[in-house]
Amino acid sequence: MSPSSASTNIRAIDVIRKKRDATELSRAEIDAFINGYTRGDIPDYQVSAWLMAVLLKGMTRAETASLTDAMLRSGEVLDFSDLPARKVDKHSTGGVGDKTSLVLAPVVAAGGLLVPMISGRGLGHTGGTLDKLESIPGFNVNLPVAQFRKVLERCGCSMIGQTAEIAPADRKIYALRDVTGTVESPFLICASIMSKKLAEGIDGLVLDVKTGSGAFMKNEEDAAYLAELMVETGERMGKKMAALLTDMDQPLGYYAGNSLEVIEVIEVLRGGGPKDLVDLCHELAAWMFLLGDRLKSIAEGRQLSKHLIDSGKGLEKFRQMVELQGGNPRAVDDPRLLPKAQHTLEITSPRSGFLTAIQCEQTGIACVILGGGRERKEDSVDPSVGFVLHKKVGDQVSSGESLCTMHYNSEERAARAKALLEASFQIGEAPPAKLRPLIHRVIAKSGEKN
Amino acid sequence: MSPSSASTNIRAIDVIRKKRDATELSRAEIDAFINGYTRGDIPDYQVSAWLMAVLLKGMTRAETASLTDAMLRSGEVLDFSDLPARKVDKHSTGGVGDKTSLVLAPVVAAGGLLVPMISGRGLGHTGGTLDKLESIPGFNVNLPVAQFRKVLERCGCSMIGQTAEIAPADRKIYALRDVTGTVESPFLICASIMSKKLAEGIDGLVLDVKTGSGAFMKNEEDAAYLAELMVETGERMGKKMAALLTDMDQPLGYYAGNSLEVIEVIEVLRGGGPKDLVDLCHELAAWMFLLGDRLKSIAEGRQLSKHLIDSGKGLEKFRQMVELQGGNPRAVDDPRLLPKAQHTLEITSPRSGFLTAIQCEQTGIACVILGGGRERKEDSVDPSVGFVLHKKVGDQVSSGESLCTMHYNSEERAARAKALLEASFQIGEAPPAKLRPLIHRVIAKSGEKN
Repeated sequence: MSPSSASTNIRAIDVIRKKRDATELSRAEIDAFINGYTRGDIPDYQVSAWLMAVLLKGMTRAETASLTDAMLRSGEVLDFSDLPARKVDKHSTGGVGDKTSLVLAPVVAAGGLLVPMISGRGLGHTGGTLDKLESIPGFNVNLPVAQFRKVLERCGCSMIGQTAEIAPADRKIYALRDVTGTVESPFLICASIMSKKLAEGIDGLVLDVKTGSGAFMKNEEDAAYLAELMVETGERMGKKMAALLTDMDQPLGYYAGNSLEVIEVIEVLRGGGPKDLVDLCHELAAWMFLLGDRLKSIAEGRQLSKHLIDSGKGLEKFRQMVELQGGNPRAVDDPRLLPKAQHTLEITSPRSGFLTAIQCEQTGIACVILGGGRERKEDSVDPSVGFVLHKKVGDQVSSGESLCTMHYNSEERAARAKALLEASFQIGEAPPAKLRPLIHRVIAKSGEKN
Repeated sequence: MSPSSASTNIRAIDVIRKKRDATELSRAEIDAFINGYTRGDIPDYQVSAWLMAVLLKGMTRAETASLTDAMLRSGEVLDFSDLPARKVDKHSTGGVGDKTSLVLAPVVAAGGLLVPMISGRGLGHTGGTLDKLESIPGFNVNLPVAQFRKVLERCGCSMIGQTAEIAPADRKIYALRDVTGTVESPFLICASIMSKKLAEGIDGLVLDVKTGSGAFMKNEEDAAYLAELMVETGERMGKKMAALLTDMDQPLGYYAGNSLEVIEVIEVLRGGGPKDLVDLCHELAAWMFLLGDRLKSIAEGRQLSKHLIDSGKGLEKFRQMVELQGGNPRAVDDPRLLPKAQHTLEITSPRSGFLTAIQCEQTGIACVILGGGRERKEDSVDPSVGFVLHKKVGDQVSSGESLCTMHYNSEERAARAKALLEASFQIGEAPPAKLRPLIHRVIAKSGEKN
């Protein structure tokens, strides 16, 4: 795109102009633009103008797939095709208390599929799988690809962070979007998520697209649009895809915070845990089994998931993965070995009535303020802090009763978080008219819906 | 906008997001953004995303005036308020053979107003006033401001190029627009033109907005929109404004090329010259007299302009300005002292009939190819080349008769230009149904239209 690569005959300026004028870009044009940027031949200022044009003019499905593929191929694409079982994964768009990945990877591996899961850190008010795993003493999320493969071969699942070799175009583009007001485009979100996930060399992917006050996409129609876009993009790239639009109007389960969430994950793998979290894990596991051709229906998938938990096989896989990735496997059986905050404080109800709503994003921010996430990129995370809910939306509550227990290490942070948490709970005289369903919608090929 | 200027409380990212979402930006936000960019605190990649958002979402009139004013105030604003007469100027959006500035500055100065004219170089297929002036041996367009003022005081007009101190924000933004597909926005065009012109410290400005095959804005409605935008922006900034939408469907006058156009300017100042060029000069001069409060009507202005030419006072002013700016004043009386190309070649009509159309942009490109303009920024200009038309649209023509004479110095360039020129003339059996008027529309406050 620079004079040195003029031989491709595709100029960056023409790619920008076409998108500005809402003309569909060809595969070759998108490839040249993304490759030129990854190589450093095209400057940031041309790409940011193009990103704004994409955000405002949109993309066709073909363009979105081309962009995803170009970003995917900008780096290493893992190849586990020699391994005997189907490879599947799950991706969540992020929420508060969303710890399903830690349950799903071992359960689905116990069911005979392979789960090569590359995850992220906390972002904004949401938690991150890597931060949660690192609260397990010794757990290493930074495995080189060869060791990632070894763990996968030995126990059927492995969970690591993004390597420098995977989708470098996405890393550059994401950093640019963050400072140019171009984060919110569904087309760019789709390409970012899918290029990283498909670099895992998987056959099928279930998307857990969150909607509600604790999701990035608060509007259900926006979330559904993104879900459909990602499903179609994955299918165009030859993958088995499904998306569940799920509720994030209150935290998932009772626990939020890194080691606290690991404790709840272990509860679920032991056959306990709160209904919403358990139900969502079974549902997502069932879809992973279905897309991995392990079973023929969601109903069978749910049954298999329950069986793998009841039999202790899921917990056993989790313990095995923890050990293979350098973590202390005894922490799986004795949660007292996990980091624990020094202090706790009860957030109590100011009156009797019903919990009618939780400002979910605010509770996530409270967790970040306590140290459970990052206020600035360079911050380190405190694995022990967070909160444990005692009530969920619809529950009856008495005046002075505890709504949640805050776990903290700093009085100053606790004071800020307390104010936020207290303001997050809405207490009414009557129970809420109608509870939101856990799963709002399923987006998948019609033959697969049950 | 960077951490160092966070005290303004206005963040670049928020300014980008607001424009992206079509929210009106405040004066303070636009100031902070433009000043931050000029100082180097805001990077190119944020500004280019914002420029694309402006192009696609537009601006209100208040935002356009704020942007123009912020760009104007990014550098030096000349102040001639101590000089006794009103200061006026004319700006053209560019065309082929458009040499009116060289007639207007001396004529209007001879009429008693001051004309501090800062002009540009050739751009694309269009000629530039500075390039034309530099074909006069010795003429210096790079005067420091103090000397510009001195020439203005002594003869009432001076013509120079943009100094580094004037509107530095425009220079940075223009370079960025050129490589990010954001040239075409009327709001950005308006702010770019008006910030530079109003830095001249003028009281009134006439805009000559070109439309037709040789203009940048080929569509008349686009040109009218830009004209109205510029008039309103100037008025909001306290200037007397008018815009003439004029025809650029064929070259203006007969001569195109730098020294060739100076020859035609001298013809006009001597009372000769082609009707379209002469009429447009009188019309623009009349508007300058009106906006400079020199007279009460356009009709009086036309008369005064004719008188100043007939009496030789305009030519005398031109001679005086040439001399004050280091040029050889004898060239004004003896055009043989101007640069002359080594060769000429006739472009003849392939058949008898009528000249029904000229592809005006193509003739401008032919002139650039001959060396009269720049194919690349670093090219130097050949002052002597160009073409002289012998026929204009509507004229009858015989087979083999010359349509124009090409003046050239390079056989290779001549061959390329000849092919372009030959293809530019359209010969039909009947005369064109209706000739386009020279002045399509006048945009000014209603009381000023005659």
